[in-house]
Amino acid sequence: MKAIDLNCDLGESFGSYKIGMDEEVLHYITSANIACGWHAGDPLIMDKTVKMAIQCGVSVGAHPGYPDLIGFGRRNMDCTLDEIRGYVVYQIGALQAFCSANGTTLSHVKPHGALYYNAVQNEDVARVIAEAIASVNPDLLYVILAGEIADRMKRIGQEAGLKVVFEAFADRAYTNEGTLVSRRLPGAVVTDPEKVAERALKMVKDGKVISVDGIPISIEAQTMCVHGDTPGAVELVKHIRETLEIGGVKVKPMGSL
Amino acid sequence: MKAIDLNCDLGESFGSYKIGMDEEVLHYITSANIACGWHAGDPLIMDKTVKMAIQCGVSVGAHPGYPDLIGFGRRNMDCTLDEIRGYVVYQIGALQAFCSANGTTLSHVKPHGALYYNAVQNEDVARVIAEAIASVNPDLLYVILAGEIADRMKRIGQEAGLKVVFEAFADRAYTNEGTLVSRRLPGAVVTDPEKVAERALKMVKDGKVISVDGIPISIEAQTMCVHGDTPGAVELVKHIRETLEIGGVKVKPMGSL
Amino acid sequence: MKAIDLNCDLGESFGSYKIGMDEEVLHYITSANIACGWHAGDPLIMDKTVKMAIQCGVSVGAHPGYPDLIGFGRRNMDCTLDEIRGYVVYQIGALQAFCSANGTTLSHVKPHGALYYNAVQNEDVARVIAEAIASVNPDLLYVILAGEIADRMKRIGQEAGLKVVFEAFADRAYTNEGTLVSRRLPGAVVTDPEKVAERALKMVKDGKVISVDGIPISIEAQTMCVHGDTPGAVELVKHIRETLEIGGVKVKPMGSL
Amino acid sequence: MKAIDLNCDLGESFGSYKIGMDEEVLHYITSANIACGWHAGDPLIMDKTVKMAIQCGVSVGAHPGYPDLIGFGRRNMDCTLDEIRGYVVYQIGALQAFCSANGTTLSHVKPHGALYYNAVQNEDVARVIAEAIASVNPDLLYVILAGEIADRMKRIGQEAGLKVVFEAFADRAYTNEGTLVSRRLPGAVVTDPEKVAERALKMVKDGKVISVDGIPISIEAQTMCVHGDTPGAVELVKHIRETLEIGGVKVKPMGSL
Repeated sequence: MKAIDLNCDLGESFGSYKIGMDEEVLHYITSANIACGWHAGDPLIMDKTVKMAIQCGVSVGAHPGYPDLIGFGRRNMDCTLDEIRGYVVYQIGALQAFCSANGTTLSHVKPHGALYYNAVQNEDVARVIAEAIASVNPDLLYVILAGEIADRMKRIGQEAGLKVVFEAFADRAYTNEGTLVSRRLPGAVVTDPEKVAERALKMVKDGKVISVDGIPISIEAQTMCVHGDTPGAVELVKHIRETLEIGGVKVKPMGSL
Repeated sequence: MKAIDLNCDLGESFGSYKIGMDEEVLHYITSANIACGWHAGDPLIMDKTVKMAIQCGVSVGAHPGYPDLIGFGRRNMDCTLDEIRGYVVYQIGALQAFCSANGTTLSHVKPHGALYYNAVQNEDVARVIAEAIASVNPDLLYVILAGEIADRMKRIGQEAGLKVVFEAFADRAYTNEGTLVSRRLPGAVVTDPEKVAERALKMVKDGKVISVDGIPISIEAQTMCVHGDTPGAVELVKHIRETLEIGGVKVKPMGSL
Repeated sequence: MKAIDLNCDLGESFGSYKIGMDEEVLHYITSANIACGWHAGDPLIMDKTVKMAIQCGVSVGAHPGYPDLIGFGRRNMDCTLDEIRGYVVYQIGALQAFCSANGTTLSHVKPHGALYYNAVQNEDVARVIAEAIASVNPDLLYVILAGEIADRMKRIGQEAGLKVVFEAFADRAYTNEGTLVSRRLPGAVVTDPEKVAERALKMVKDGKVISVDGIPISIEAQTMCVHGDTPGAVELVKHIRETLEIGGVKVKPMGSL
Repeated sequence: MKAIDLNCDLGESFGSYKIGMDEEVLHYITSANIACGWHAGDPLIMDKTVKMAIQCGVSVGAHPGYPDLIGFGRRNMDCTLDEIRGYVVYQIGALQAFCSANGTTLSHVKPHGALYYNAVQNEDVARVIAEAIASVNPDLLYVILAGEIADRMKRIGQEAGLKVVFEAFADRAYTNEGTLVSRRLPGAVVTDPEKVAERALKMVKDGKVISVDGIPISIEAQTMCVHGDTPGAVELVKHIRETLEIGGVKVKPMGSL
């Protein structure tokens, strides 16, 4: 039986500022990537989100980003590799402490925003993040983009002594090379909920996605990224999950795959 | 044979900003309280300071403070107990990750600045910090002021399942009640290096300090706070250490006492 | 003909975080207190809010707060008077630049949150804020709580060479002494929209408010604080404005009173 | 008689952190570029630095940078043009308020660190900074690198309605095209104080600098950048100033040239 994890970025509120429908989306996902207070999140939010994830049986992961709260971690910053290493170690540790305080363990690390894209595009960045994760705890899973960079990432994971988990996006268009179409291009995001759910099912059952040019592309992924920012987004996650389960796919945390 | 730990606040530099003579003072102390990036410190500094402490055989502790970099954590902030709990958990975790990354374990937690004084003056704050520490790891030692509040703090430690370590200040004047004379009052700080070293020795050997009124006060301490901000401060630490050792006192990390 | 200004805190969003229904409430108020990037707000939000205020004919004021984004400026911080002075000057200047860039002038300054309450309770804080405002531009109006402290504040304003504008709260209960009932006490906030609008009208027409003990209290105010956080709050502002205008009160910016 | 301004970055301390020998170097320069609290500086430092500059007869300029205190504004951040515009307006305003509070006027704006280099390399960034400055006050001088980009910058200045002031570096090697040799290359920085002073004199008297390949390059500059970070740096500034004055050059603020 085929299986997949559904992951979502959570805990992105900050102080009096609320972003995301965390309570709602937690019912449909299996892994939470929790912001660690740098690009979003704060200690009270982290604690609350860890508690809610535990209650929903959702795995807890760290979602480290650049020190850029105004930019929500979406702007690239020209950091040295040592700086990136330090930022990732720091943020993993902070979230890990809330896991300990709540009687759970951290399962994975997924870089956020510009740091994620930096890791996808730059092998040295991808590697230093792997090393940072492994240095804190080599049992942590390293979540990164499936497709074109998979071989490189497997090698980086092996060298660092880490397991890499590949992530697919059912709502994003793919190039023939198996990477994401830039958001700046038309058609980059699939908006029809039916199509997104179908694509999700096909990705898991057949290991394929149809590229922007209509060509079937192989894609090996253990987790699928979903969103919980709006009521519509939560509805979509629910629909994806139901479509997957009706289609015979088991939805479960990445650590149990 | 009497024994004492010498602790010092370290890792208080930030980015391009340097504070403290960390390399120098590490040769004479046995425990480092390392800033965790909130009132001072940053990931690169934390990593570097942990590495240096390991090389010098110095125990690593977390030194969490208020989120107040401009004020260096020295200004009281009217935080809720839950906020304080979250801030302490977060900062311990961040430093713990650098300990893991460098192959050591965190030994203790000493609140910084206004948070320390808040804990000394307010039982609820003292308790929530104890709970925060225990929730991350009950093996961590909780360092707090020796003297007047010792009984209360022992009880708080027991209730939280933590060991409390009491800290004395050889360079600070004590009241008859065994607490520190406010820095705003004249004579609050002892500046003569000889006197400071003598007081340190007397504290450890006799368990006594002479109050501002000339009355011998009992003081039970396992660690003594020293400073490393200036060349003169480092010289003083060296002198205190030599005076203690010549006086037959063993200087060693608080965890081994 | 009686007249009053309606002021509202605006521009409290930050980066990707949205707070407040600024566009909606701007149609019913006459003065905007715009956050200056310390407890809330950022340069893009400040610019956008100034532009919207100009379009709606609403006066622009600075709303400086403590450097405490996590706490939204609502937590007291133990700052020195010089620190407070510097923080107020800085934030006024930042907002003033967005006024210049958009072809308008700053009309007033209203301290935010804990800084406001600090000014109400502490004469030295009230005075240093007055001095800070006057040092940047003595034509700026200084908005502060009406009632019990009015005489003191008039004196402080005169000494600093500033005009003080007094602010009343139609939705807050008053003590017999003419100050606000603490939010921690029951009945501190009046929630019935009809009652709030009635109180607003009575405050302006009769210069009176009925205290928690049923005693009519004199209250001299040139501006009334309203809120725009929720759709319900905006509806209430609309209702207050209509009630005032139907009752024969002219609603106009504090600078023209 | 030839004349030149000597400018130096000042006010880069932050809270308890001290950087720079501001008091000392102020005696030898004619323009201060004062950090505005984003990459460095805070309100108390800004106020103190403005006061010291006034006492020394030194012109006050704003030195805005990226929101990156950990990185001291030296790391490029992928900001939109609107974000850059907002950041520059904000920081100019903040410093302008300290000028008003101290009875002086702001004379110029020089972008800091990565923002400066971004303006040098990217015409759109250079232009949006010009527009930001002009929107606050078109009398402010816009300080930017002399040499290769001078024509472009003159045009940008004209279009924005601003005067551009060109800056030369006596201690940096120049390419044949009249731009700075990257700091990553050997020989990028001239360290011999005698040579630096000679180069400074030649730049002003002949309008020439000898490139790394030994070719005389024309360079038109109204201000020269000097440093005040170390005792040695201050000595060098003193020596440059003396060499210029002995060589018949008048050293005076850029606004009076």
